[in-house]
Order: sequence, then C-alpha cells, then structure tokens
Amino acid sequence: MRKELMKMLEERKDEMIEIRRYLHEHPELSFKEEKTAAYIADFYKGKDVDVKTNVGNGYGIIVTIKGDLPGKTIGLRADFDALPIKEEADVPFKSSNEGVMHACGHDAHTAYLLVLADCLIQLKDKIKGTIKIIHQHAEEQPPGGAKSIVDSGNLDDLEAIFGIHVLPMAPAGTVGYHSGYSFNGRTYFKLRIQASGGHGSSPHKANDAIVAGSYFVTAVQTIISRRVDPLSTGVVTIGSFDGKGSFNVIKDSIELEGDIRYSNVDTQEVIDKEFHRIVNGLEELFGVTCELTYTSDYPPLYNDPELTTFVADTLGGVKDKDIIEVKEFPKLAPSEDFAYYLEKIPGSYFFVGCTPQGVEKPYFNHHPKFDIDEDSILVAAKSVGHVVSSYLGMD
Amino acid sequence: MRKELMKMLEERKDEMIEIRRYLHEHPELSFKEEKTAAYIADFYKGKDVDVKTNVGNGYGIIVTIKGDLPGKTIGLRADFDALPIKEEADVPFKSSNEGVMHACGHDAHTAYLLVLADCLIQLKDKIKGTIKIIHQHAEEQPPGGAKSIVDSGNLDDLEAIFGIHVLPMAPAGTVGYHSGYSFNGRTYFKLRIQASGGHGSSPHKANDAIVAGSYFVTAVQTIISRRVDPLSTGVVTIGSFDGKGSFNVIKDSIELEGDIRYSNVDTQEVIDKEFHRIVNGLEELFGVTCELTYTSDYPPLYNDPELTTFVADTLGGVKDKDIIEVKEFPKLAPSEDFAYYLEKIPGSYFFVGCTPQGVEKPYFNHHPKFDIDEDSILVAAKSVGHVVSSYLGMD
Amino acid sequence: MRKELMKMLEERKDEMIEIRRYLHEHPELSFKEEKTAAYIADFYKGKDVDVKTNVGNGYGIIVTIKGDLPGKTIGLRADFDALPIKEEADVPFKSSNEGVMHACGHDAHTAYLLVLADCLIQLKDKIKGTIKIIHQHAEEQPPGGAKSIVDSGNLDDLEAIFGIHVLPMAPAGTVGYHSGYSFNGRTYFKLRIQASGGHGSSPHKANDAIVAGSYFVTAVQTIISRRVDPLSTGVVTIGSFDGKGSFNVIKDSIELEGDIRYSNVDTQEVIDKEFHRIVNGLEELFGVTCELTYTSDYPPLYNDPELTTFVADTLGGVKDKDIIEVKEFPKLAPSEDFAYYLEKIPGSYFFVGCTPQGVEKPYFNHHPKFDIDEDSILVAAKSVGHVVSSYLGMD
Amino acid sequence: MRKELMKMLEERKDEMIEIRRYLHEHPELSFKEEKTAAYIADFYKGKDVDVKTNVGNGYGIIVTIKGDLPGKTIGLRADFDALPIKEEADVPFKSSNEGVMHACGHDAHTAYLLVLADCLIQLKDKIKGTIKIIHQHAEEQPPGGAKSIVDSGNLDDLEAIFGIHVLPMAPAGTVGYHSGYSFNGRTYFKLRIQASGGHGSSPHKANDAIVAGSYFVTAVQTIISRRVDPLSTGVVTIGSFDGKGSFNVIKDSIELEGDIRYSNVDTQEVIDKEFHRIVNGLEELFGVTCELTYTSDYPPLYNDPELTTFVADTLGGVKDKDIIEVKEFPKLAPSEDFAYYLEKIPGSYFFVGCTPQGVEKPYFNHHPKFDIDEDSILVAAKSVGHVVSSYLGMD
Repeated sequence: MRKELMKMLEERKDEMIEIRRYLHEHPELSFKEEKTAAYIADFYKGKDVDVKTNVGNGYGIIVTIKGDLPGKTIGLRADFDALPIKEEADVPFKSSNEGVMHACGHDAHTAYLLVLADCLIQLKDKIKGTIKIIHQHAEEQPPGGAKSIVDSGNLDDLEAIFGIHVLPMAPAGTVGYHSGYSFNGRTYFKLRIQASGGHGSSPHKANDAIVAGSYFVTAVQTIISRRVDPLSTGVVTIGSFDGKGSFNVIKDSIELEGDIRYSNVDTQEVIDKEFHRIVNGLEELFGVTCELTYTSDYPPLYNDPELTTFVADTLGGVKDKDIIEVKEFPKLAPSEDFAYYLEKIPGSYFFVGCTPQGVEKPYFNHHPKFDIDEDSILVAAKSVGHVVSSYLGMD
Repeated sequence: MRKELMKMLEERKDEMIEIRRYLHEHPELSFKEEKTAAYIADFYKGKDVDVKTNVGNGYGIIVTIKGDLPGKTIGLRADFDALPIKEEADVPFKSSNEGVMHACGHDAHTAYLLVLADCLIQLKDKIKGTIKIIHQHAEEQPPGGAKSIVDSGNLDDLEAIFGIHVLPMAPAGTVGYHSGYSFNGRTYFKLRIQASGGHGSSPHKANDAIVAGSYFVTAVQTIISRRVDPLSTGVVTIGSFDGKGSFNVIKDSIELEGDIRYSNVDTQEVIDKEFHRIVNGLEELFGVTCELTYTSDYPPLYNDPELTTFVADTLGGVKDKDIIEVKEFPKLAPSEDFAYYLEKIPGSYFFVGCTPQGVEKPYFNHHPKFDIDEDSILVAAKSVGHVVSSYLGMD
Repeated sequence: MRKELMKMLEERKDEMIEIRRYLHEHPELSFKEEKTAAYIADFYKGKDVDVKTNVGNGYGIIVTIKGDLPGKTIGLRADFDALPIKEEADVPFKSSNEGVMHACGHDAHTAYLLVLADCLIQLKDKIKGTIKIIHQHAEEQPPGGAKSIVDSGNLDDLEAIFGIHVLPMAPAGTVGYHSGYSFNGRTYFKLRIQASGGHGSSPHKANDAIVAGSYFVTAVQTIISRRVDPLSTGVVTIGSFDGKGSFNVIKDSIELEGDIRYSNVDTQEVIDKEFHRIVNGLEELFGVTCELTYTSDYPPLYNDPELTTFVADTLGGVKDKDIIEVKEFPKLAPSEDFAYYLEKIPGSYFFVGCTPQGVEKPYFNHHPKFDIDEDSILVAAKSVGHVVSSYLGMD
Repeated sequence: MRKELMKMLEERKDEMIEIRRYLHEHPELSFKEEKTAAYIADFYKGKDVDVKTNVGNGYGIIVTIKGDLPGKTIGLRADFDALPIKEEADVPFKSSNEGVMHACGHDAHTAYLLVLADCLIQLKDKIKGTIKIIHQHAEEQPPGGAKSIVDSGNLDDLEAIFGIHVLPMAPAGTVGYHSGYSFNGRTYFKLRIQASGGHGSSPHKANDAIVAGSYFVTAVQTIISRRVDPLSTGVVTIGSFDGKGSFNVIKDSIELEGDIRYSNVDTQEVIDKEFHRIVNGLEELFGVTCELTYTSDYPPLYNDPELTTFVADTLGGVKDKDIIEVKEFPKLAPSEDFAYYLEKIPGSYFFVGCTPQGVEKPYFNHHPKFDIDEDSILVAAKSVGHVVSSYLGMD
C-alpha cells in the first residue's frame, strides 16, 4: 500500500502546489479563517468521510477516515491561519488580502495534508485503523485553536498524533526531528504597579511608581540568571514599560507587559513561582499595589522520544528519492500550539526543509519575504505518508 | 516722608484691591500677557516717569522713578503672569479666561506695586536716588522673564533689589524672611536611551532599552543618597519613563524626563557632575547611546544675608499697625526666577502672609482654590515702602 | 551675684586649665572611667553638697547644689569619657594612656564645670533654687550614659538643662547656638541574610545571598532619595558587607552592618518604617530569611527654641570681655547623647569656639591631632555661669 | 585481535580492582602526585614501550605503544590526581591520606588504563599504528595538566584521542556519549573596586565601594538574562563579596571573586565582552577604579560529532556481555580539562556508568561518600578497547 500511496502523491504534486498557491493568495487571520475553512470543507464534499466543521473555538475541521481494516487511531494535523504581515515576497500568487500573509508556511501544510488525506480516502480499503485529519485554525494567536480542539473531545481516541512544519533550515528533501522538548512554551504578563503621585520636588509626599517599576525590572533579571537551570532555556522579556508622564510630576502608576519563554515544564514552574514571588516582594519593598495578569499561552512542545525515534527510523529507513536526508534538528526558540495535542496524546512534530533553491540565506518564517521551495510540499506529504503507513503497519 | 507714604498707601488700599480683582478676572499665561502689560503701561500714562515696555524676552516693563535728591539706585519687582489652571475658587471676580488663573498671587504683587510706584512718583521731590519698578512677565514658565531682563542691561546700575511673595503660611500682618538660600534651583532633563530592538524570545540578538533605563533609574538614586551633602537639599525625580511597546518585542529606545532640585549652587554642581557621569557610565555599561538634554531653569535663590537682616530689622523695628509680626520663614522647596536678579544684584526676596481670615488649612499657591486675604496687599505695599524708605535713608 | 561669679571664674582660669591638662593626660574609655570619676568625686570631698556616684549605667556623678534662696531647679552637664584614638597632638600633657585620647574636648568640659560648680557652691547663700551638676560618663559609646541617668529619676525635678560643647568652628570668645534640631540622631543596624549555598555552576539549586544583599543595598538608596523630606537630613550607610567566601561556591549567608542618621524625629520614623519594609520585602523578593538588629542609639538633639533664644539673648546681652561674639551655628551632622536629656527636659546645648590661636584649618573633634585654645574653658564657664544667673534670676 | 583483547581484560578484572583500591587508599592532590606517578611508571618498568615522565607542568606520563603493523596514531587518556576532600565513604581501602580523596573516580580511570595498556603492549604484534597512553596529572586544579601536555608537543602526531569518565548516572554496563559541546568551560575572576572611604555620616565626602559593588552585582545579572543565547548555557556566580568593615565607616574598597561557566565558545566570547564592558561602565558610573583578574581556566569540551557517532555506533554494535546499553547522556555542567586535547585533536570523551548496585540515589562525584560499582572498571577497559580496535581497524 505504501508504494501505491507514494505513487499517488507523486502524481498529484502539481495539485498540491496549486492548492498552496491558491491559499497563499487568499490568506486569513487567526480566528477569521472563514473562507479558508469553507475551501477545505468544500474539498471533502462528496468524499466518503465524516467531516466536522467549526470544531473548537473557531473554524477547526476534523475529517475522520475510517479504514476498512482494524487498527489503531491516529491524528494528522495541519494549521491554516495566516499572519498580520504585509507580504514583500515577489511571487505571482502574492497575497491579495493586503496586510495578511501566509508567512509561516501554513498554506503548504494544508496543501499537502488535503492531498494526502484524499489519497488515504481512496485507499480506505487497505487502511488498518482510523486516521483523523485535523485542519486547525488559529495557530498563530493565543489562545490558539489546538487547546480547544483537544478539549472538544474529538481526539480522545487517538493513540498517536503527527504533524510537520516547513522550515528553511535545510533544502527540500531533508527531514528533521527533535526528541523531547523541541519548542519553547510561552506566557504573557501584564503588571500594573499602583503607587501614589505627587510633585516632583516633594518625593516624600508621594510614592514613585517609576522607581518601583525600575527596581522590579532589575530584580526580574535574577530569575533567568540565578533561578533557572543553566542547561534549560528561560527568557523573561519586558517589552513595554508604560510610564509616560510629566517631567515634574511623580508618576502614580505604571504598566509593564512582557513575554516569558521556557523550554520545559520544570523551568516554567520555576519562572512562575519566582515571578510571582518578586511581584509580591515588590509590594512590600516599595509599599505599592500590584495587579498582575499572567497567562500561560502555549506549553513547551514535548515530542515523545519513542515516537520521534520511530519517525527518524522510519524515514531514515525508507528508500525514497524525495527524502534525501533525515537528521536531528536543534531545539527551537519559538512556541507552537501543537504542544497542546502532545500534552494529551503521544506524538511527534517534525520538520521538512524548504529553503528555496539557490538561496544561501533564506528569509525565515514570519519574514515579509518568506518563501519556500515548493518541492517541500511533496516531501511533507510523503514523509507523513510513510509515518502513517509504518505506524499503522501497512506495508 | 515715610509717614506720608504710609498714609497715602493706607488711603489707596481699596484701589489696590480693585486692581488685584481686575487682574484676577483677566489672567494671561506666561509669555502671553499682552493685555496685562498694556494695562500696566496704561497705568503709568501721563505720569512723570520713564517707562520701557517689551523688556527682555516678553512683555516686561521697567518704570524708572528718578528722585529729586541724590542717592542709591534700587529695584522693586513684581511678576504679572498667571497659570494654566482652571479656577475653582468661588469669588465674584473669578477668572474670565477659562483654564487660566492667577493661582500664585501675582495679581496681588502687581496691584501693590502699581499703587506703591504711583505714590513714590508723587513723592519724587523727597526721594533720594532712583527706584526702578520692574513689572516682570513669565515667572511661571522656564526660561522665565527675569534672566532676560537682567541680561537686557537695564538693571546694571542697581545696588539692591527687593521683592515679595504672598504666602498663606501666615495671616495678613505677618512678614517672613529667610537669609541665604531660600528657594530651590531647578533643572529639567530629557534622556533618550538608544539600544536595539528584537524579538522577545531572543534577547541576545537585541539590546534591551527598558533594562538599561531601569538600571539607570536605580543608579540615579545614589546621587541623592550618597553624593549630596545630607545637610543640603537635592531631588532627582524621573517623572516620565516612556517605554510603551509591544509585550513580545524588545524595545529599541526609551525616553526619560525629569526634574532636578537643589538648595544651593554646590549641590547643583554635585548633581550636574554625577548625573552626567551616570549617563556616560550607562553607555558603557549596557552598550547603549544616550542623548541628553539638561537645562538649568532657575538657580537656587540666594537672599543676601546682610540685606535680609536689614529687611528683618527694618520691619521688626517700625511701629506700623498693619505689620504685626516679622519672623523667619523656612526654606521653600519650589523655585522662583527672582533668583536670577539675586545672582547679579544683592537683595532680599521676602514673604507676606495672606491666609484668608477664618481659614485654618488654606489652599496653597497653584491650587485651583487658592485665595488670599486682600489685607495682605496693603501689608506688601507698606513693607516694601518701609524697606525703600530705610534703604534710601528717607525718614 | 553674677559679677562676683564672673570674677571668681576669671581668677580660677589657670586652675581650670590645670584640671583640663591633668584629665587630658589621663584619659579613659567610655564605661571604664573609674579613675576619672574618682578624681571628680574627690574634687567635691569636704564641700557642702550632695554627691551621688555610680549614677546610671556607669560612673555617672550628680552633685546637687541647693541654694539658700527659693527658686527653680536646673541641670548643667559635662561629659568626661575619652576616645579609642592614639594621640598625635604634640602637647606636653599628651595622653599617658596609649591608644586613648581626649580628642573631643570632654576634658575641657569637665574642667570648666568643676570650677564653675565650686564657685556656685561658695555662692550658695545667694543662689535662688537648686543646681544639679551632672558629670556624665560614656557619651561616646552607645548606649551612652545620658539615657541611664535620665532613667535613674535623679533629674525628674529639673525645669531646664544646659550644656556646651567646645568646637573649633570659631575662636575662643565666640559662642554659638542653634535652635530646634541641632545634632543628628543615630541608629545602628546589623542585617543577616540567610539564603542557601551551592556550587557556583548550579545557581538554580542554591539561593544566592550575595545577590540578595546587593539588591538590598540598591533598594535601600531609595529611602534617602525618595522617602525622606528633601529639607531634612537622612543618611543610611552600609559600612560592612561581609560576604567573603570561595569564588566558586554560592554564598549561603551574608551580614551587613550600618549606620543611620536623621535630623529629626519625623525623619527617624520614616527611615525606620521604610528600612523595615525593605527588609521584609527582601525576604519575599528573594525567598531569604532576614535577621535584623536595629537599635536607635541617640535621638536627634532638639534644642528648645525658647530656651535657645534665652541663651542667645542672655549671652548676646551681657557685657563680658571674654564673650566676644554670639551667633547662630549650623546644624551638626554627628550625634550627641545630650539629646536624651532634651527628650525629657527643655534645655539648650550650645557651642563654645575653641580654634587654637593662629591656626587656620584646625583639626576637628575626633582627630588624633585635635587641640583647643584653652581660653575657651573660661568662656565656657562664664557662658554657662551667665545662663544660670539669668535663668535663676540672680543679677 | 579484539576477541583476544577482551578475553585478556576479562581475566585481569580483579587486578584492575586491586590497582584501583591501592590508588584509592593512597590519593594525592593535583600537582603533588609524586608517588602516584612513580607507581604508574613502575608499572611499565621492563615493558617494551617508551615511557616519558614529568611531561608538562607536573607528573604527567606518556607511554607510547608502537604496533608492529602500520596505521594511525591515537591517544588514550586517564587522569590520576585526587581532591582535597575528607573521605566519608565506608570502604576497607579508605584514604590513608587524611583530607585527600579519590572522590572523582580517577583511581578507576588509571586502573583500567594501566591494564588495558599492558594488554595492548602484549598484543603489539597485531596492532596497526601507534597508541599513546596519557596518564595525566592535575585535572582537578587550574591550570590543569592537559594544556601543558598538549603544549609539550608530544601529542602533535595524534589523529584522534579518547577518554572516559565514570559517572553514577547509570549502572555499570551502561556507556554514555554526547556529541558536540558536552562539558562547560570555566573562567575565574577577581575584581577589586577602589573607591574612597569616609565617615558614615558624611557620604558626600567619600565614595562608597559597597554601593558600587552592589550595583555591579545587579548589573552583572543581565549578562546571563539578556546577553547569552537562551539556548546556550551561561553562569556568572559571584562567590565572594569581601566588604567587611566598620558599621559607621564608608568602605573604601571591596573585592569580589567569582566563577563563570559557558557551554560553548560563542557564549564564552559574549560573557567575556559583556563582563569587561560592565566593569568599564562601573568605573564611569560611580567614579571608581577597577582592577580585574580574569582567567579562562578550561574551555568548553567539544566532542567531535563524527568520532562520537563512531564511538556510539561501535559500542552499540559490539556484542559484549559487559556492555549492556549505549545511550546519549545529557550535557554536563562541570568543567573538564580533557577539553584542551579536543581543542587540538578530534576525539570523544565518553561516560561509563558506575552507580553502586542496589543504590537508588548514589552520591555524585566530589561527594565525601562517592563510591563506584567496581564492575565499571572492566566496562571502561573494554569500551575503550573496542573503540581502539575499531578505530585502528583491528578486528
């Protein structure tokens, strides 16, 4: 069956590219992917599968392909939202939705998964088990779509889940994997420090919020420098210190906002605890009142080591002219809401090289000039196809 | 002559109050006192004096009263600008210029000095020496009017200068004095810290301006805590920390603004030196670029000890039913541009109590409900009249 | 009687100097002034007065001179302890007690008061009221002798108390006064910060006491820079940061010690409150445990304004060839335990100039080369004699 | 040949243990291993090899085994110094050198390598190439022995180098490997901050070294929190803050000492640059003078990826009853001077599990109760034996 599947995918390479280009030209922002979702749903119209739309907190779609033979139940996920970026890439299928761009490759993700799903549908009589195709909305914007899809209960029966991300860290033909923690988790915070104002010449009659806020910023540095395991990754960025006022008036309150990253759950816990401790300490230290919003957006993404080895071994072992190299990729600094699936379901999220041919320093994901080698779409389809075939035991 | 002068002043008390009320109803902002200046100039029309208008950097007026007898040359100054405050005092002559208010008593200053000047003009044949009446614009707003009037050269021949401020620290009838440094000097600063931005998850690729700014704020505290003589007064207030940005973007630059106060020139020099040192140190410490605007607005006001003793002894010694008590007042935290005259000319700037009768906790200068006991206007006129009489030796 | 007293004092000038030199040669440390106290007690032997020894927490002596005429009860105080300083002054009566020196003029204080007391004893029949002569031990070392003498109850009947300090801020012949707060109060603190140690390469397994202590030092700066009234005086010095350890071991605890000064009780309260607040805040901020010793040694010394005016007027008014000038002295930075008397009894502690003749830049009190113009001893005796005479109404 | 070698090693297992126990009972400190070196040299006496003693800056020994067949030249290294730790392990062969202990397993390293070397000597006729046995002194104490041995030129002809460390992270039978950066590099620093002292009550006349030092400590935190790549490891520990003084004297100078760690050369460069920048900035910021000693002790240890894969594949592939599991080990926080060999010669430093049987939470290296499962010595010998056999192509 694997052979048949691969052949089908190869034959539909152009179609994948066409779909990707169509999506690229019609990007939609997270939680607003109405037309994209309709396009996807339309793709499945008339096919012999169960299609659930509006899954989770947005336009999520789950397509269930029930094989004719008994077997395990697995999930495959591709995200389909775009970013609030004005495209600068010089391509014929440039975004027609000004200020919105598929700058993260979700167009390619969706393109490969649609075609792969269709092929699998056609091969239903040979499929052992059940494959749930998850077209996910809103990956780019917290709270994201993944958590709500998990919470919907539609994936409760999955035994494994897989997904890929195109990355210009290698050429098309290279597949990357990383075991264990692979993407950082992320927390947003807003801290309002309420002190009391007064005239600049009489500090003793006021309580200076800018001073309290500044000492807070310096104290927060110790979380990363002294509290986090040096072998782990942690970042606390205060991106906003809103303390604009009049030069000779002591500021009565300020507002800080920031972004916290962590490579694993232990580090997350350390930062959570220390951050709250410092906020509490600040209240006492300067006699101010703190109002803290502290929201964990995405957990650190943890690839199941066994399944990641399975992916690496499977793809390393296949003889496929389109899969040229399989290698370990480094841990990645950004966050990815695939992490939510992996909190509940063992799985592996792996990487498909997409550096455009002849380009030495490619533009990375989220850059206005981000572009991919479209050969990578077939690589994605085949890689996931191989993993599915091997995992469900369909050789 | 003193007796005659006092009698004339007593007789014109109502006129002083009337003038004050007129001015109070028609306040004008610093550097925009066109009508007030015209009103004053008009007052002197037809009188046998030399009147210079548009003196200095605004509507300043100098009226020279040349006595018929030989003697010293002295100056008397009253300021006439108002504040950008919406009046809340419940008086029949409430400000008709919405949002502008004589909330600092300059209306009373001008009222007493006009009438006193007129009386002195009438007594010219008995006056020994020359009296320059300085109606000063723009005391409230740096760079102020005083410095420019001094720089105009019109006061180069003064041997002494006097002025008063009404203060609700005592009832009408009380005159206060303070020898040596009496008002704080003041400096304005703006500091732009230029670092380089980046993504919140990658601090090592950026240089965080908020962090640099926060450490700056903490380091600046040591100027007052460790560098300034504890027996002197110094204040460094950072009233504005403009670092608003996006929570997950490292801020590339911030802007601080602030207000510096000092009780004497030595302290000013210490703060100047240390502030610049810390700014320079910050550039190295964090690899940032600093752009500093640092402007000394008003120097600390230094009352000549000899002339202040002269004022205290003169007023303490006169038998005048309207001058009930003469006492030392404490040093004052605000700034006052009379300081510029005193940098060049020995003199004394003293205080006239004006707490409204029956009021226990009066509203202070610059409060929207600030009001005065109008009896204080006559006290001001008489006090300055006595000082002039004694100083020029006209008893 | 005043005339008689002054004549007696003038005649015994040499004796005063002799006593001073004897004491200078035989200095004893605070709380160890056994021989000095014996010397003083011996001086009163056989005289018709009540002598109490071992008053308070050391060798304090109170001599009560009960006048034959009715009147008020007042106290006069002189301190008699010396300092742990190795004398470098080149005088024939140099300290014979190596490493101990009368470097603060207490020898002169005691010398004048012994002779003055003796004269007053001889004039008992003309004295209205009662004069308590307080020879105080241990002024230089907290807790000092003053508080314990006040607490002993022996001074409960005093209506006023006076004392002087010799100061090389003016020549002999000058008497200085300062009304209100005149010496700073002082508090000692010791802060032990207990965190937890660990290996230098694994900060996350430890809690770094040096980091906590350093942030403490920076936060403490804000007490003076932002909390204390800029017109008042406050100082917080951390004189010791005991954090010596091994370069690659995270320090588990450190100990800070320091010295706090304040010009008045309001400032003392502000610093007390804020210091404790910051210590508490630190515990939370860094999860450390703080052990704080915080001891107010000497309160700020407050000269009763009425009695200070009385002293200034009295001495300003006498015609005495030895009292050449009477003037206001500035507030002084050090501390003085005379403050404890003034907490309970109205009084005035004033100054007697003692700059050695022909010296332009005299060595100040506590300097190993400190010396005085011995003429100042008579000035002291006469000044206090005049104040006593006037206060008790004995002209 | 491999088979023969393994059989020989198995037969001499008891001898290895005996040697290890002898060394354990007779530990010597770094650079003082006179007797240990003599013991080792003695072991080779009479054997047909070239033995160089006193190599490098201490008692280093290089034994050159020239095989009879042509081939590559490789090095094998074991360290032989002990630690200044008082042994608390309850073993019959407890340290007889009070206060010195083989708490890091160098006794086991030396034991296995001696026996392995002897076996290889006996197999000389079958050996392709040359094997240099490096018995290294002074691994535990900077500057270490490795660098000097490399600098001696004796290893210039090596094509590869291997070594192992026993670690109680796994039982005997497990071999661990880590590719790329595997141990942290380390730098020592001492910073003297010279300011100027003074009396605690007069901060403006002094320049407070404790304040400068404390701000330094807070600023240094930003190196790790903001400058180092979050995916790398960096640590800056200030282990000593020597600022002990008198509570009321402003400290004129302090001395800090500390320990810096970094996982790779890029991070080392970032920390070096930023640390020096902050020191320079501090001088300006507080007007102090800094004297900095900054010494890179050990570089980060970089295992050649190809040779590490070679080791992992070789040991993963052999069928050997004593080598039960071969797996990746995590990166390690400490430093190791094997790094100096790897700066010049490609190689791999790998790990041999040694957790005592039946122990769940073993004491780690450098603990006074550190102990090993002595079966691990044979595992070490065999593992290195296999690597040598495969690398030199001697199957």
